[in-house]
Parts: sequence; structure tokens; C-alpha cells
Amino acid sequence: MRTGTWLIGARGSVAVTSMIGALAVRAGLIAPTGCVLESPALRERIRPGIADLVFGGHDVTSVPLEKKAAELAGSGVVPAALAQAVKDDLAAVEQRVRPLPAAPTQAGTAHAIADDLDRFRRQNDLDRVVVINVSTTEPAPAPHPAHASLDDLRAALADPLSATDPVLPPSSLAAYAALTAGCPYVDFTPSTGARLPALDALARERGLPYAGHDGKTGETLVKSVLAPMFAQRNLKVRTWSGINLLGGGDGANLARPGANAAKSASKQRVLPETLGYLPQGETRIDYLEDLGDFKTAWDLVTFEGFLGTGMRMEFTWHGCDSALAAPLVLDLARLTAAAHHAGRAGPLPGLAFFFKDPLGEVPHGLADQWRTLCDLVTSLTPEPTP
Amino acid sequence: MRTGTWLIGARGSVAVTSMIGALAVRAGLIAPTGCVLESPALRERIRPGIADLVFGGHDVTSVPLEKKAAELAGSGVVPAALAQAVKDDLAAVEQRVRPLPAAPTQAGTAHAIADDLDRFRRQNDLDRVVVINVSTTEPAPAPHPAHASLDDLRAALADPLSATDPVLPPSSLAAYAALTAGCPYVDFTPSTGARLPALDALARERGLPYAGHDGKTGETLVKSVLAPMFAQRNLKVRTWSGINLLGGGDGANLARPGANAAKSASKQRVLPETLGYLPQGETRIDYLEDLGDFKTAWDLVTFEGFLGTGMRMEFTWHGCDSALAAPLVLDLARLTAAAHHAGRAGPLPGLAFFFKDPLGEVPHGLADQWRTLCDLVTSLTPEPTP
Amino acid sequence: MRTGTWLIGARGSVAVTSMIGALAVRAGLIAPTGCVLESPALRERIRPGIADLVFGGHDVTSVPLEKKAAELAGSGVVPAALAQAVKDDLAAVEQRVRPLPAAPTQAGTAHAIADDLDRFRRQNDLDRVVVINVSTTEPAPAPHPAHASLDDLRAALADPLSATDPVLPPSSLAAYAALTAGCPYVDFTPSTGARLPALDALARERGLPYAGHDGKTGETLVKSVLAPMFAQRNLKVRTWSGINLLGGGDGANLARPGANAAKSASKQRVLPETLGYLPQGETRIDYLEDLGDFKTAWDLVTFEGFLGTGMRMEFTWHGCDSALAAPLVLDLARLTAAAHHAGRAGPLPGLAFFFKDPLGEVPHGLADQWRTLCDLVTSLTPEPTP
Amino acid sequence: MRTGTWLIGARGSVAVTSMIGALAVRAGLIAPTGCVLESPALRERIRPGIADLVFGGHDVTSVPLEKKAAELAGSGVVPAALAQAVKDDLAAVEQRVRPLPAAPTQAGTAHAIADDLDRFRRQNDLDRVVVINVSTTEPAPAPHPAHASLDDLRAALADPLSATDPVLPPSSLAAYAALTAGCPYVDFTPSTGARLPALDALARERGLPYAGHDGKTGETLVKSVLAPMFAQRNLKVRTWSGINLLGGGDGANLARPGANAAKSASKQRVLPETLGYLPQGETRIDYLEDLGDFKTAWDLVTFEGFLGTGMRMEFTWHGCDSALAAPLVLDLARLTAAAHHAGRAGPLPGLAFFFKDPLGEVPHGLADQWRTLCDLVTSLTPEPTP
Repeated sequence: MRTGTWLIGARGSVAVTSMIGALAVRAGLIAPTGCVLESPALRERIRPGIADLVFGGHDVTSVPLEKKAAELAGSGVVPAALAQAVKDDLAAVEQRVRPLPAAPTQAGTAHAIADDLDRFRRQNDLDRVVVINVSTTEPAPAPHPAHASLDDLRAALADPLSATDPVLPPSSLAAYAALTAGCPYVDFTPSTGARLPALDALARERGLPYAGHDGKTGETLVKSVLAPMFAQRNLKVRTWSGINLLGGGDGANLARPGANAAKSASKQRVLPETLGYLPQGETRIDYLEDLGDFKTAWDLVTFEGFLGTGMRMEFTWHGCDSALAAPLVLDLARLTAAAHHAGRAGPLPGLAFFFKDPLGEVPHGLADQWRTLCDLVTSLTPEPTP
Repeated sequence: MRTGTWLIGARGSVAVTSMIGALAVRAGLIAPTGCVLESPALRERIRPGIADLVFGGHDVTSVPLEKKAAELAGSGVVPAALAQAVKDDLAAVEQRVRPLPAAPTQAGTAHAIADDLDRFRRQNDLDRVVVINVSTTEPAPAPHPAHASLDDLRAALADPLSATDPVLPPSSLAAYAALTAGCPYVDFTPSTGARLPALDALARERGLPYAGHDGKTGETLVKSVLAPMFAQRNLKVRTWSGINLLGGGDGANLARPGANAAKSASKQRVLPETLGYLPQGETRIDYLEDLGDFKTAWDLVTFEGFLGTGMRMEFTWHGCDSALAAPLVLDLARLTAAAHHAGRAGPLPGLAFFFKDPLGEVPHGLADQWRTLCDLVTSLTPEPTP
Repeated sequence: MRTGTWLIGARGSVAVTSMIGALAVRAGLIAPTGCVLESPALRERIRPGIADLVFGGHDVTSVPLEKKAAELAGSGVVPAALAQAVKDDLAAVEQRVRPLPAAPTQAGTAHAIADDLDRFRRQNDLDRVVVINVSTTEPAPAPHPAHASLDDLRAALADPLSATDPVLPPSSLAAYAALTAGCPYVDFTPSTGARLPALDALARERGLPYAGHDGKTGETLVKSVLAPMFAQRNLKVRTWSGINLLGGGDGANLARPGANAAKSASKQRVLPETLGYLPQGETRIDYLEDLGDFKTAWDLVTFEGFLGTGMRMEFTWHGCDSALAAPLVLDLARLTAAAHHAGRAGPLPGLAFFFKDPLGEVPHGLADQWRTLCDLVTSLTPEPTP
Repeated sequence: MRTGTWLIGARGSVAVTSMIGALAVRAGLIAPTGCVLESPALRERIRPGIADLVFGGHDVTSVPLEKKAAELAGSGVVPAALAQAVKDDLAAVEQRVRPLPAAPTQAGTAHAIADDLDRFRRQNDLDRVVVINVSTTEPAPAPHPAHASLDDLRAALADPLSATDPVLPPSSLAAYAALTAGCPYVDFTPSTGARLPALDALARERGLPYAGHDGKTGETLVKSVLAPMFAQRNLKVRTWSGINLLGGGDGANLARPGANAAKSASKQRVLPETLGYLPQGETRIDYLEDLGDFKTAWDLVTFEGFLGTGMRMEFTWHGCDSALAAPLVLDLARLTAAAHHAGRAGPLPGLAFFFKDPLGEVPHGLADQWRTLCDLVTSLTPEPTP
């Protein structure tokens, strides 16, 4: 069950960490720590396995994967010896990473993307290809009437104006191309991706699953267990404020107001969804170049107990975003491939566990999301042959 | 459905905060914040309600409830105006608090305790009485052969030697007396309580439910949501260390080595139960008189992600133990009364949500405990009459 | 040595806490905790003493002092019993608080302010009056050519246009009026105050001392001891980021972009001044109404040691700004009065200890500021009569 | 001015980090970050310089320096490339590290140690040799009457009983041997070292300086700036509690009760010395093997401000002890050598800046210690030749 994993943003930190990790797991060099599908509860249930994943992708930059791997080793994300050990395998992936195409219309660009996906599938003898967006976060796009209808969208994309005045933001154009080429689409970023009525219609027309948005790797992950705790204990959260200090390419991009707003909104959603009300406070994102691939988040929660007594909780999370995100990318590739194999189409609510801002009517507390994921895994696990 | 709530340690902070809170809720002066059975998910399901609870109890000290209420107001646990508003109702409770009896044998003492419970029930026209231990933590008692068999226990308690060389620690003697008097027993402390084979046999013989141990009010509560998060994400916890700084009577008692050891053990159990392994690290308890009824706990968790990357999380919890414990005491009185009404006997695994060290084969992650509690509530909710 | 203390913003939290505290110290009800001049090292050196201070002031609001005192008691800043105990004395202060005047020109307004100061001095038989600005922070004013010269300033203030297009921001107009009336001026806020060449000239012409800016009460205080520590140990600070969460009127005002920028700039200055370079990172201020008069600040410092090893430090400061500021207001009134008495004119560098953004060429590390303060106190201490 | 630096514990983390760092600074490979004598304020004042230091030492283990260097590189204390770059120089140091001698009497052992020191000096053509103890912390030794008098000590050491029932703990025997051989002695650990009347007499007899105790590298360093801040602001510290979680050889040793007690006492001394009173609370040390050479300390300070308002501060320090200690070892070698050159004898109070538990009547606040150090440096700086 050879499965293509086509990464939009294939030369970025998350993508290259995913590739190195998958190659190292396949070679038996490391344990699959951080891979949810390899936890004791879910192990050996989902096919394809990590070893079945074949990587390729698009990127706007041309930094060689090997150079990016060296950077990651230098900043402590990837052990230098491991980067060395998978060097040849990574060179093979390098052959399958292509520049992001551009054509006179957005329809033309989508066509070229789809061609790349087709070629990837044929040349590597793949059962299917999953497209996952791990590129930098876009600002929220302006609304466009063609977003509401697949026919209108097709027409608008074919209009030559679409080259200079885009109908779709890059993430949605990638989703369009992926679905057109018969590939499931996952958005690991807060960008728009497949989250438009016209693209939902396309996914259902083609019988394809999709998932998103915004991989849940740190502060929001912790919020998604603490907020239900306060709710279940009937403690009243008065304020919840947080600050995220992050470096790396992600940090630099999120320092731009548009992307920052998109991300902050995504991070706060868990509170009203699990508490039933929105406490005072905001989540800030600040860029600190010097932190590199690491991130420090601090949250302060003030709450009220019996007789109105005021209490408080603080937490600090110091994590490596790439190391937290990369194993989830592998999980998502496998789960989306298995869902496609099982004939699922449309959004996959069972993947809410992985996202800050999951699609559909889904639970936002981590424990409920975990249960939904376990149910999905069970439904996708092949019956043992008697 | 008037329900007696007999508190062992009736003049302590937790007990008096429970009483004031219940009286204030009944009078409509405050919202039942912190009462789990009054959260949106469970509201108006369990009878008796808070207003149905009638308080009484034993204590070794004779500090008047009103004086304790003034102390609690002085230290910020109870608003002074509220203590004033329920003054008359609290004076009525004062009439129902008695000194802890003592007799020439432990059997005699148990008999006197049971007599007090009987009188409380009759004089107040109560449907049933639930006994809840909120007194200070005992050191773990020496094992005794009579703990294993109800017959042996009865014989040993009647032996005059039992007065000077006790067979049962005080919490277990209270449990024995309660069960003998037909009352369910709940232990909110880490003390032994009903957790002996002979007492389990007695509970089953008398058709009585019991529950415990050690109310989960702060650091362990947080652990019980964070540890499952790490497990579900397949992140490897390397170390988990904590320190609890607490004042008040509880703190002074826990500073004694015996009680400290009992408590620390109770606090660590959640980790191996939810992670599947025990990380390095210990939980310390230090007494800081100046903190009064407030407690500050700090925990450091170091963990390993994909490719072995080291990461870390810290949290600080600053809570008021009495304000966190008191509403749970009300929940436990109501749930245990409803379980008794429904004919349940033996330990109540559905109450694991409330305890650091719950009885029986129960889940230790808070989310699973919450589901078990919801199932229990559903099973105890009377069918609506058609 | 009866000394008038005229507070601009006399009905605000800092002002009323200062008044209550001074009255309570004079009545022997509390110890002067937080008063620097009452620390063991400096005790009984400076005249006037706290008991010599007579309060009055201006404010734009008309909330009675007694009502403000009740609010402060409600939010835990002032013990309710203390507010009650000084009630009569506070009512006497109430008689000396007046609405901030307004006239057809800024010169006219200044004249009216000066008249109020004169009347306060005469009616209360005061040796001198010190004016202290504790009102809300202003946005930085637009530059104006008349700021550079006292003659030009006088002319511009007399121009009728000055009523609608102000030459001076309110804090500087208050400073102008104070100096005109022969009163030393202290700015406890980041506002402009006397920090203009024309006003410096006026102070020197009149032989009056002045001081500022921005009382150092929390996060910056801690920074002013930690930054020198890193410098002395030759540890290289890579990043220093902070967030301040604060409620109260101060927080609401600082949430406005203009005031926020003025304050944040003031808070960062200590780093380059003590480290010799500016590390990456910013200081944020967020408004959380629910925190009331309390403030929580969190700072993350990452630094590099021998062989480039990366290390980190975090701190959380949870303080009550009014309770930290009020005793410093008393210190500043006493020190400025003593300096005036001793014939000092112009900025007082010896008061840098009290300010985030002190005037003049002064040290920014707290220890050096402390030494400068001790030297000032010594120079102002009257020789014991033989 | 070639200066021998003889390290007791020469194969430990601190020693080997010192050696690698000094060799790398001499080779121009790294900046001397963390070296106090290389900070802008003190640079190029003290001779010998780092490049003048020649290393040797004793150790009870025989792990090769190169192997220890590889371990330090593996745990992130030393960059692997740097360890490689100084490999040959480190091999030369290896030739000068000898096993700790043992003889039938303690006098014999001391004689053998002194012989090693003499040989080191002669063979390497050194102007002088400074002995610095960086070995693991000893439990406090039993008092012995011979500690009080040099004559008695000499007699007791020569007694054959001293081999089995030691008169001096190892650190003090090393100090005795060093002083006998004409070498200044510095104790970087909390062990007894030269801190005995008999050894003080010996140092003065021989005209030798000595210093100690217990290098101030983390939590205590921060305390030594925060405690004076609270004192200067006349804020009343109610409680100060801390926990230190540390791994490495140091952690394992400090987990033993004797050493733990010695260290904890040393860490708390700064509080009464700078505050003028001892607040409630204790400092704990816990061993967490997994933390390796890194240490995390957390402190909670609760304090009281004006009108009794309760406030609090927390800090977390996450540092690498070897990287913090090693540059101080270089500073101490240079300063002690310069003091010896200048004819100083007895304890060196000017070095209090470096120690948790400094010798003599010295300031305990870091700022005052800094000033004392600057004065010492000035007094030791050679006059520029006109």
C-alpha cells in the first residue's frame, strides 16, 4: 500500500523533519515517539504504515533538503548523526521535490500542479497520493463570490484576470488541484485550504476526504485539556491570557499582522467551545528570531471557585514545533490515505484531535477528540482474515 | 429526600466551608460554583439537592463553628458578608456537632459513634445519613490480622486491649461505626477509612456503598489531564517533579513524616496509571504556615518528542484547598445518598473523578473518570414520570 | 515642617491609597511597609516625616474619596477596617481636593491651578507644597517650538488658540503651574511633565527641584536587578521578552495605543543602559479588567554562557500596583520637600531609584541607584545639633 | 606569568569544562562569555590572563579527559567541534593529572600531594600554583580538637590512627597539603576546605591567600540580587521556598542526606544576611538523573507591601552548572594568583562575589560584592609604567 505524501512547503522545517523522521523510523534507527498511530493504544492498526510513505512535494524556495537538514541539525531539532544516516534516502526525496508551478491563469496553475501529482503517482507506482499543506500561513483572503459554487469557481479560475487578481489563495488553489487530481487534501496550517463551499462540493463530487486546520502542537494542545477540566469541575474561568514567543520561519511569518490574526483566532477557539463562554484575555504571538525552531508559550488562567474565591494557574510550554508537528504529519498522511481507501468523502471529523481549528461539528476537548479518533481508527482497521 | 451529612472533622476548614456554602446556596445568596453536580452537563439530575442536605458531625476540637467561620473570613476563604448572612443557620448546625466519643474498647467507641448517627437521623427526620471523613490525615496504620476478616475484627474491637493498642485507626473505626449504623461512608482524606477487607465485607453485608480516597483538588487534578495528553500524543515523559507548599492545619499535619508519605504516594499514582510507566521524579509537600488556606504547587515535566528532541513544561497552581474541596463534599454527599437510595453496595467506582487515589479498577485520567461519572449520574437519575 | 502634598489625580487608586496609608501610619495603625525612607537603613533621617504630610489635589472626576476607599477595600488593596478607621481624616482631605480648573487660555488654566496651590498652602499653614502627578498616562504630545524656550512658552500659553490646540499636555501644564507657584514637581507617570527645556529653565529660574518619570513598581524593578546580574557575570542576554497583564483604570488607559507605546518604551530602557546592548524581545502591556488593582507580569530571559551554552530564566511578578506605588509617593513627597528645603534646583538624579525612566545621567541598575539615594539622604540629613 | 591551576576533581564536569574553555579561549576559538574578569568593566586588568593558566590535578577516578569531553559534548555542555579542536591540548593536560595519593597516615598523604604540586610547578616552569577544589561535596565532618591548633593538627595527622579515623576530611587535607607546598587554596564546593582555625593559621604562617565556599552559579545568584531589592524597597518577605532539580554527578552526590544538608544550609544564608531576618521556607535539592548537566530551580517568594497587601513572585532558572561554574574557576585561579603575587595572606573577602557562603565579614548582596570585587581588582592591577 505505497502511499504518496506530497507536501506543499516541502523544503520547510516541518516537512524536512517529517521526511528525516519517517526515513529513520523505516531504517529502524529511532522509535516513532510523537506518532499518535504508534502509541500503545493504536499501534499496528492503520495501513499504510510509516514505511509505506513516499515523499515528494512543491516549494517556492530551492534550498536543497540536505542543506535544510544540516540547519535542523545545527539548531538541535535533528541529531546530526541521524541526518547523516538518512542522507542517501533524503537525496532520493530531493528528486521528487519540484518548484511550485505558475501559469497565465489560476486554472492553468492548478492544471500544472495536478500534472505534477499524476506524474509523482505514476513514476513511483503509488496506490494513492495525499497532499498536505505545511507551507507558511497566509493572511485570510478577501471573500469572492466564486467561492460559493464549483461551477462559478471553475469559470473564475479560467479567467485571465485570475493571474493578477487571484480568485483563490495559494492553499486553496493547491486543494483545488489536489482534489482535481483525485488526491485527498490536508491543511496543517490556518490557511483557507479546502475550507470553501466550492471545494467541499468538489471533494464530494470526486469522493475524496479532506481535513484541517492548523496542527495542534503546543499551547492549544494544553488548553484543550485544561479548559475541559475547569468546565467539568464547574470552576468559572475569569481570564485566560497567553503569549507565544517563537522564532524560525514560522515566527517571522506570524509576526506579519495578517497571518498573526489568522493564527490567534485559531488558537482561542477552544475556549468558548469547551467552557461554554469566552473568558477575558487574548493570545499573543511574538517573533523572537533567536529562539530558532523552539517556542515558549506562557498562559495565565484566573478562575473562581466556591464562594467566589479567586485562584490562578500558570503554565509554560517550551517545545520544538517541528519535532511536535512532524510526527502528526505522518499520522495524517496515513489516516487520510486509509480513509480514502475506505471510501470516505468530505471533511474527516475524526481527525479533530490533530487540529487547533478542526472542520465540522466536532468536539474541542482533547479527550473527546481522542475518543473520536479511536472510533475512526477502529472503523478503518481491516477485519482480521479468519 | 432530607439527607444527613455527618462530617468527621466537622469543625475544620473544609467542613465549615461546606456548611456555609450549602447554606448560602440554599438561601440563594451564591451560585454553586465548583459543585460538579451543578455544572451545565449534570444540573438538576441528582436528588437530594444541595438544599436537602442537613449537616452534623464529630470533632475532637471544640472551636465553635462561628469562630471558625470568622477565621475563614479573615483568611479570604469565605466572604465576611456571607458568613454573617448564614450565621443563624450555622448556629443550628452547631447544635448537631458533637465531641468524638471514646469508650473503654474500640467496639464501645464505635457503638457510641453509631448512637450519635442514629440520634441525628431520628431527631432530624432524615431519610438517610452519609458519613464523610474530612479530618486530618493519619499516618498509615500497622497491619493487623483482624483487618482481613469481619468476624476477627469484631472480636478484636471488643478486646479491652483495643483501647490502648488500637486495632483500627480512627478513620476506619468511623467507617466501621457508620456501616454498622446503616450509613454510607466516604473518605475525602488519604487515611485508611473503609479500605480494609473486613470493612468491605461489612459494607456488602449491610448493602451500603462507600467511596474514597483523598479528594483531588489541585496539582493531582491537573496531572490527571496532562498525563493522558502526553500518553495520547505518544510523547515520552522523562521526568515529572513537583512541590506543594501549603499552610493551614492540613499543611502542619502533612509536615509530619507519616502523613506526608501517605499523601505523596497518593499523589503520584496517577502517572503510572495513565502513562503506562513511571517517569523519574518525586512530589514533595512542604509546610509554609504563612500561606494559610492557600496552596501553591509547581510541577516540572520534561519530555521527549520525535527524533528524541527534549522539551519541557511547567505549571504553577495557586488554589484555596477549602474552596476547592468543599463543593466536592456536597457532590459526594448527594451522589452517595442517591447510590444508597438506588441500592448500590460496596465501593463506588463511578466516583473516581473526585479522588486522587480512587478505589477499585477505575480509570485515572480525568476525561475517562468524567465519562464514568456521567454514566453513574445517568443510572441514578430517576426516569421522568410519563 | 508641615508639607503639602498636592496630587494631580487625587481621586485615583494610587492617590487614595497614599492618603489612607499616611493617615494610618500617623495614627499608629500600621507599619510603614514599602516606604523606602522607613527601611532600617534610612529610618528617621529625612524630615518631613510621614506624619508631617498634608494632602490635597486636583482631579477631573468627582468620585468622593470615601467611595474610592470603599472600592479599594472591596478589591483587597486596603483592609476594610483600616478604611473605616481613617474615615474622618479622609473626610478632611476631601475638603482639600478640587476640580481641575479650565480657562479660556492655557495660561489662564495654569494661573487657576497656581491659585489653588497658593490657597492650599495658606489655608493649611504649610511650609511648602510638593505637586505630584499620579493621574493617568497621556499619549506623547506633538513637539511644539515653544517647548524649547521659556519666553516662547509664556507667549504661546497666553494665545487664545491654546485652549483648542494645546501647547502643553496636561501634565506639563500642571508642572508649569506648580513651578510658577513655587512648588517642586514630581511626575510618577510616563507623561511629559517637567521634561521640556522651557520647564527646566523655569525650575532653575525659580530655584525649584523636580523629578520623574514613571514609578518603578514591578517588572521593571526586577529587571533593574537582574540585568546588572547578567552584566556582572558576563553572561550574554540573547532575548528578554515580557508581558504585563493589568486591570484597573491604569490598565484600561494603557490599553490605548498612545499610552501603551509611552509606557512600553519607558519599561525597556533599563536593558541597554545596564547590559550595554539591547537584546531581542519586547515588553507588552495587555488590559484584563478582571484583574482589578493587581497585575501579573511574566518575563522570559534567554542567555548564553561559557562555550555558548544556552540557558534561560523566567519570572512571574504578581503585585498590587497601588500598594507598591503609594508608599513611594510618600517617599518622593518627603525627599523632594527636603531637597527644596536644602536649596536644590533642577532635576534630582538621586531619585533615580524610584523611576523606570529617571531624569538625567543616572545609573539604571538598582544597586547603583540605591547608593545614589543613600548619598542624597545623607546630604539632606540635618547635622545633629551638638 | 605562567600560573599552575591544580584542580582537585580534575576529571569532573566542571574541571574538564574549565580546561576545554581555557584552551579554546587561548586558541581564539570562542569569546570568554561568563568570565567575570573579561566583562567590559574588568577586562585586561588582571594578570595572569586565561592564556597563562596551565592545568593539572588530582582525581580518584581514571576516566580519561578525552572521554569526559565526549560525554560533555553528548550532553550539550561543550560543542562537539570545540572538543575536537582542543583535543591535542587536552591530551597534554591529561599527562599532568594524577591519581589522588594515599599513605599510611594523613600526614603521609598530604606529603605525597605536596610532592605532586612541587613536581607540577618545577616540570612546567610555573611562577606559582593555585589549588582549586571542584570535587564532589563532602558531608560535614565531625568536629575534632586538633582543628583548632596548627601544632595539634600536625601531631594528629602524623598519628597512624589518622588513616582509618581521619582527622581532616579530604578537602581540608588537600588545603593542608596545598598550603604546606606554598600554594593558595580555593574551595569551589561547600566542603570544609581551609575553613578551620588550624588551616587559617597555616595560611597566615606561610603568607598564602585562600578563598571559598561553594561557587554561586544559579538560584543563589538570583537570590543575592532579589533579596536586597526587597530589603531596599522595605517590602516584607514572608516566605521564600525553593526546589532545585539537578542531575549529573553533582546531583547524585547531593541526593545523599549529608551532602544535601551541607548544600542547603549554604544556599539559604543569603536571606538573613541581606534581609535582616529569616523568612519562612526551605530550599530543597532533588536528584533527577535525566536532567544531566542541567539544573532547574524554582523559587516562590511571598511578600507584604503597604497596608499589608500580600503579593508574590516566582522564578525559574534553567542553567547548565558546568557552563556557569567553569568560567568562574578561571576567574578564581587568576585572582588568587594575582593576590598571592601581591602578597595577600589569609581569606580573600574581595572574592565573596563568587561564592554562596563566602568567608569572613563580607556583604551578601551581589551588588555590594561586585563593588568589593572591583576594588580588589583595582588594588591588584599593576600601575601602568609611565
